[in-house]
Amino acid sequence: MTGEILCVGTELLLGDIMNTNAAFLARELAALGISVYHQTVVGDNGGRLREAVSLALSRSDLLVMTGGLGPTYDDITKETAAQALGKKLVWNQQAYDRMEAYFLRTGRVMSENNRKQALMPEGAVVFQNENGTAPGAALETDGKIIVLLPGPPSEMEPMFCDQVRHYLEGKTGQTFFSRTVHLFGIGESAAEEQLRDLMESSSNPTIAPYAKTGEVLLRVTAAAPDREQALRLLAPAVEKIQKRLGPYIYGIDVGTLQHAAVLALKQRGLTVSTAESCTGGGVAKRITEVPGASEVLRAGICTYTNEMKAELLGVKEETLKTCGAVSAQTALEMARGARVRTGADIGVSVTGVAGPQQSEGKPVGLVFVAVSSPWHESEMELHLARGSGGERERVRHLAENHALYAVQQTARKIPQR
Amino acid sequence: MTGEILCVGTELLLGDIMNTNAAFLARELAALGISVYHQTVVGDNGGRLREAVSLALSRSDLLVMTGGLGPTYDDITKETAAQALGKKLVWNQQAYDRMEAYFLRTGRVMSENNRKQALMPEGAVVFQNENGTAPGAALETDGKIIVLLPGPPSEMEPMFCDQVRHYLEGKTGQTFFSRTVHLFGIGESAAEEQLRDLMESSSNPTIAPYAKTGEVLLRVTAAAPDREQALRLLAPAVEKIQKRLGPYIYGIDVGTLQHAAVLALKQRGLTVSTAESCTGGGVAKRITEVPGASEVLRAGICTYTNEMKAELLGVKEETLKTCGAVSAQTALEMARGARVRTGADIGVSVTGVAGPQQSEGKPVGLVFVAVSSPWHESEMELHLARGSGGERERVRHLAENHALYAVQQTARKIPQR
Repeated sequence: MTGEILCVGTELLLGDIMNTNAAFLARELAALGISVYHQTVVGDNGGRLREAVSLALSRSDLLVMTGGLGPTYDDITKETAAQALGKKLVWNQQAYDRMEAYFLRTGRVMSENNRKQALMPEGAVVFQNENGTAPGAALETDGKIIVLLPGPPSEMEPMFCDQVRHYLEGKTGQTFFSRTVHLFGIGESAAEEQLRDLMESSSNPTIAPYAKTGEVLLRVTAAAPDREQALRLLAPAVEKIQKRLGPYIYGIDVGTLQHAAVLALKQRGLTVSTAESCTGGGVAKRITEVPGASEVLRAGICTYTNEMKAELLGVKEETLKTCGAVSAQTALEMARGARVRTGADIGVSVTGVAGPQQSEGKPVGLVFVAVSSPWHESEMELHLARGSGGERERVRHLAENHALYAVQQTARKIPQR
Repeated sequence: MTGEILCVGTELLLGDIMNTNAAFLARELAALGISVYHQTVVGDNGGRLREAVSLALSRSDLLVMTGGLGPTYDDITKETAAQALGKKLVWNQQAYDRMEAYFLRTGRVMSENNRKQALMPEGAVVFQNENGTAPGAALETDGKIIVLLPGPPSEMEPMFCDQVRHYLEGKTGQTFFSRTVHLFGIGESAAEEQLRDLMESSSNPTIAPYAKTGEVLLRVTAAAPDREQALRLLAPAVEKIQKRLGPYIYGIDVGTLQHAAVLALKQRGLTVSTAESCTGGGVAKRITEVPGASEVLRAGICTYTNEMKAELLGVKEETLKTCGAVSAQTALEMARGARVRTGADIGVSVTGVAGPQQSEGKPVGLVFVAVSSPWHESEMELHLARGSGGERERVRHLAENHALYAVQQTARKIPQR
C-alpha cells in the first residue's frame, strides 16, 4: 500500500510551528508497512487544498491529512476530502453528543460554529477525539482512502495510536509488533555501525534507529499474523542487540529516561530528591511526568543563587567561594543536602552553565551532575555545548538526561528491600 | 513573489528526523515577504523529484530545495534542478578550492566522488559552504528561480543567513513586518468571533490567530517597502484589537508567558519563588527558560508529599488535615511559605490533581494557584481537565500557565521601584 501525508495549516507554511505531525505519521505509516513517497503542506485555501488532494489520490492508495477540522470558517479539510471522494456531509449525533459532553466536562461553552464539527462524510469511520473537540474520520471510495486527523499533536497522536492504527492494520492485512531498545551514552551513527550487518540482513524483524536529543532508540519491528508469533520473531533480534550494545541499554520498552528512573526507584522502594541550578526544576518536572511519581519523589529544590544553595541545601560558603557554584564539589554538596534535608534515599543535583552567557568564567555547556546515597556518592563533569546560540534548552535537556540516568543507575546498585 | 519549499531526503519520508529545514525556511521566506503556499518532501528518486520540481515551477516563482547535494550517486538534486531550468553543469574551480580547503582544515580525506560537488549549473550564483562540503547555488531562467541548499541544518541555516537572504532581498523589493498580540483566558474561536469583521475586511495588515496550549496569539502582518511604513500600517489594527480584547492581552511581541512574567518582575526589580506540587517544578523550569532568569528567581521548591509541604514550606498540619493538600488554603500557605522562607517579593504556588487518578477524592484537573506578596494575596480554583487519558501533561501545562500569568499580574500591581 502506498500512502502520503498532507498537513493543512497556515501556521506550518509560515514556519510558526514545527511539523511534528508529518514526522510522527511518517514513522507510524512506515511501521505499518505503508510506503510513503510524498509529504505535503498547504494552507487553509480551497483551491490549493483541492489540487493537493486530487494529486495525492492520483498517485497513492492512502492519504492521511491533519489539520483544518476546527469549527471556524477557514477549516475546510473535511469538506474538501468528502468532495474528492464523492461523499456528502451528514449529521453525526454520536460525534455531537461526545462534543457536548466534552464541553460540559471542561466547563466551556459550546459555540454555534462547533456544530459544524459534528458533520461527517457519509459512511465514514469516525474516530472520537478524547482530547479535543474535532473528531477524525476515514473515508473510502473505489479503493482510495482518506484519513482525517485533527492538527494539535496532543489530539492527533492519541487518536492515531488508539484508533487509526488498528483501522489501518485492517486495511493492510498485516499486524506489526515492535520492541524498543533504549540506549544512553552512545550516538546514533556509532550504534548503527555496531548493528549495520544486522540491520541490512534482517527484513523481518526490521531494526531502525531513532535519535532523540541525547539518546537513541532502536525500534525492532516484526510483521506477523498475531502477537505470539511476532514475539517469537523479535526475541532473537533483541538478544543480539543486547549482546552487542548491553552497557548502553537502560531499558527495553521503558518509555523514557524518567520512566526508567521512577521504575528503578519503585522496584526497590526508594525515594529521591532533586537539587537543581541550571536545569531550574527540569529534572523534578520530568520525574513528575510519570504517573505515580509521588511514591518516589520526596522534594525538588531549585536554587538559582549561591545564597539559596547555602540556605536551602547547606552547600558550604567555603565551597562556593573556592570552587564556585559550577563545580563538582558544589554539585556533590547539593545532592547530599537534598538527600539529607528531605530524608530521601537518593539526592541528585545539577549545576552548570546553560548559557547563552558564560558564568564564573566557565564555558556554556559545562555541567556537573552528582548523586548521593548512603551507599554511594559520585559526581561527573559534562561538556554539553556543541554549537553557538540557541543552545540553552538543549544543554538543559541533556543535563536532565544525565541526572535521570544517574538516578536510575544509582537505584540499580542498591539491593531491593 | 510566490515561493515553495521542497525538501529531499528519505530520512524525512521515514520520519527519522524532524523537518526543521522546512520550518526555518518558511519563517525566513515569510519574513522576506515571499508567499509560500506549498511545502513538499520527496525522497532521492529521479522520477518523483523531476515531477515535484516541474510542478513547483509551474505554480511558483521561486523554488527553494534542500538536501541531495552530497557526493554519492543517489544525490541528484542539483542535476534535476539544472535540467528543469535548461542548464548544463560546469566545473567550478572556486567551489573545488573551497572544498579542498575544508577537507584540509578538518583533517579529513577528500574522496574522488567529492569532485562531483564542484560541478555547478551554468551561470549559477554559488553559495559557499563554510560548515560542510556541498556548496549551494541559485539558478534563474525566464523569471523562475531555484535555490539549492545542503540538507544538514548546521550547513543550511548559516548559508541562508549569510548569503541567500541577501540574494533574495535583491529579488523581492518588499518587506513584511509582524506584531504578535498575546492573549490569555480566551479561546481561539471566541477571540476570532470578536475579530471576525476585522480579519475579513483587512488585507494589509492581515490578522491571523494561532492557538497554543492554553493561550492564543494574534499575528498582525503588514507588507510595506520599509519598517516605518509597516509600523504605520500595523498601529491602527493593533489598537483595534486592544480595544476589543484588552482584558485578555498579556503582552505584545512578548514571546511567552514566562518571558512576560520575567519581564514584569525585572522591570520592577522584584524576585519570585515557586512552591509546586502537581506541576513538579514546571513553573520554575519555564521561568528559567528565559535567559537572565537568575535576576528574578530566588528558589523553586517542589513538594510532592504533605510532610514536605509542612517541613519545607511551613504549611500547617491543621490545614493539610482539614482542607487537604489540594485546597485553596494549602495553596495560599505554600505561596506564603515560599515567599517568606526564601526572602522573595512574590511567592507563587500550584497544588492540584494532574491525574491520571483522582486524589483525596478530588477530581483530575482540580488545581489551586495562589500568589503571595506583602501587598497582595489571592488564590484561585481551576478546573483544567477536559478529556480522559493523556491529559496529565496538559493539566500541568495549563496550571503552569495560570501560575506564570498570576506572577505577571501580581508584579504589575506592585509599583515600580
